[in-house]
Amino acid sequence: MSRVAYVNGRYVPHRQARVHIEDRGYQFADGVYEVIAVSGGALVDPGPHLDRLERSLRELRIAMPMTRAALSCVIGETIRRNDVVDGIIYIQMTRGAAPRDHAFPARAETQVVMTSRRSKPHPRAYDEDGVKAITVPDIRWARCDIKSISLLPNVLAKQSAREVGAYEAMFVAADGTVTEGSSTNAWIVTAAGELVTRAPTSEILSGITRSAVMDIAAEEGLRLVERPFSVTEAKAAREVFITSTTAFVMPVTQIDEAVIANGKSGSISRKLRARYAAHMAAAGASVDGASQRRTL
Amino acid sequence: MSRVAYVNGRYVPHRQARVHIEDRGYQFADGVYEVIAVSGGALVDPGPHLDRLERSLRELRIAMPMTRAALSCVIGETIRRNDVVDGIIYIQMTRGAAPRDHAFPARAETQVVMTSRRSKPHPRAYDEDGVKAITVPDIRWARCDIKSISLLPNVLAKQSAREVGAYEAMFVAADGTVTEGSSTNAWIVTAAGELVTRAPTSEILSGITRSAVMDIAAEEGLRLVERPFSVTEAKAAREVFITSTTAFVMPVTQIDEAVIANGKSGSISRKLRARYAAHMAAAGASVDGASQRRTL
Repeated sequence: MSRVAYVNGRYVPHRQARVHIEDRGYQFADGVYEVIAVSGGALVDPGPHLDRLERSLRELRIAMPMTRAALSCVIGETIRRNDVVDGIIYIQMTRGAAPRDHAFPARAETQVVMTSRRSKPHPRAYDEDGVKAITVPDIRWARCDIKSISLLPNVLAKQSAREVGAYEAMFVAADGTVTEGSSTNAWIVTAAGELVTRAPTSEILSGITRSAVMDIAAEEGLRLVERPFSVTEAKAAREVFITSTTAFVMPVTQIDEAVIANGKSGSISRKLRARYAAHMAAAGASVDGASQRRTL
Repeated sequence: MSRVAYVNGRYVPHRQARVHIEDRGYQFADGVYEVIAVSGGALVDPGPHLDRLERSLRELRIAMPMTRAALSCVIGETIRRNDVVDGIIYIQMTRGAAPRDHAFPARAETQVVMTSRRSKPHPRAYDEDGVKAITVPDIRWARCDIKSISLLPNVLAKQSAREVGAYEAMFVAADGTVTEGSSTNAWIVTAAGELVTRAPTSEILSGITRSAVMDIAAEEGLRLVERPFSVTEAKAAREVFITSTTAFVMPVTQIDEAVIANGKSGSISRKLRARYAAHMAAAGASVDGASQRRTL
């Protein structure tokens, strides 16, 4: 089955899916995106993802190109045409195509691109061994709360991680605190058993998986504190993990050269990882595709 | 005459010029660009522009896609096919198209896009009346020395300027100093007659027009100091101006609500503007297109 992409109103073969060279996403990074997990054919937390998409658009004053109902239809159809049962859908919206000029064009129509693909299951080793992370200076702009396609520093950070066999790079602010990962939110469990993650200011993206994990943590009766934590505190923490749409809840067992605790994923990380997997599975089990789309 | 764009080895009608939706320029702002002025059919300062392009690519570890000689041929041909005598050429290079993943793709070929268009002459009023600028917080990332397409904060700043009838927005760092404009370098002339512009660190782009104006200033016997200056100092300066490939040397006669000096462009700004215009004209007068290309 060949892949299909949605591009501005048309479903086209993926290989031929193109946008104009003066699309402002291409020339100015003037756009936003979302990645939503598909589990058992259903979207995981579609409401919060689309809420965040609309917020990102509002912050940049890019017009929402269609109703949420229409958007939900296109999302469902893109997933269906790609026969994705477990995977992701990628949604990108830009300010439109116009003669190059930094300021907003007088007449521009929001451009919409979607792709969907299957995901491989995580290697089993992640559950017990977790992954390695490195730290890099946070050189990003001051509006990381907007899920923009202005991702060049994230690209460079992720590449630095990949080159030393690490899964993720954690951004570190000038004051020595961890802001977030290059495509994940960062968490620690303190010696006192407290769950700590940074509060969602303009310095980080307010992760949808982060929110879901907060809910799960509350159900589990865990104490949660939203505050910054330093790299030093993270390296000495009882547990460290990261969250995202594709990492789920991922134990981190090494940061730079420091092994976290005994080098194996901790009990709270494992519990939350299992509970989040169940949360994803529930999306697929509880609703069929059609009713899922109605709930968006 | 219909416009033609160069896209990855082919000259195509501008309206049909497209790139793949998984070009990393579109999904990650993972690319760089240059804008070079064309004057009398010849490029203005092509050597420094292409040096900077190569530096930007090196900093991001994007491969130079062709020899400089080949690149010069394509530039010349793109200008010729668009019949541009006075205008600009826009060159964009990205890390290539690959399945979406933050880290560098294992196999990627640098993608190259070029467009060329005619420019209208500046309104005469600019010479005497100058333009208005506003100030905005500098919220950009820490590598503004790389001429990347990660321009979203520049877009937002320019739009803020446009909405109040200003020509440019000047970025102001946390310490109250002006870094640069959203697409220009910023300069002042002090009461003592000293020319001041920020030194080219990672906080600003090292402008090619900036360098050319530094050379002209030296020829004119002006005293030049490379140091940061504050918004307060700029508002109280004898003269303020900005420089770029398309603004040339542009007098700034108002910053926010503060009128600079008597509200007319100052003598040094005018002198440098006239001298820079002559520098551009000399590019066209001294060489024909073919020999110009050989000098790149």
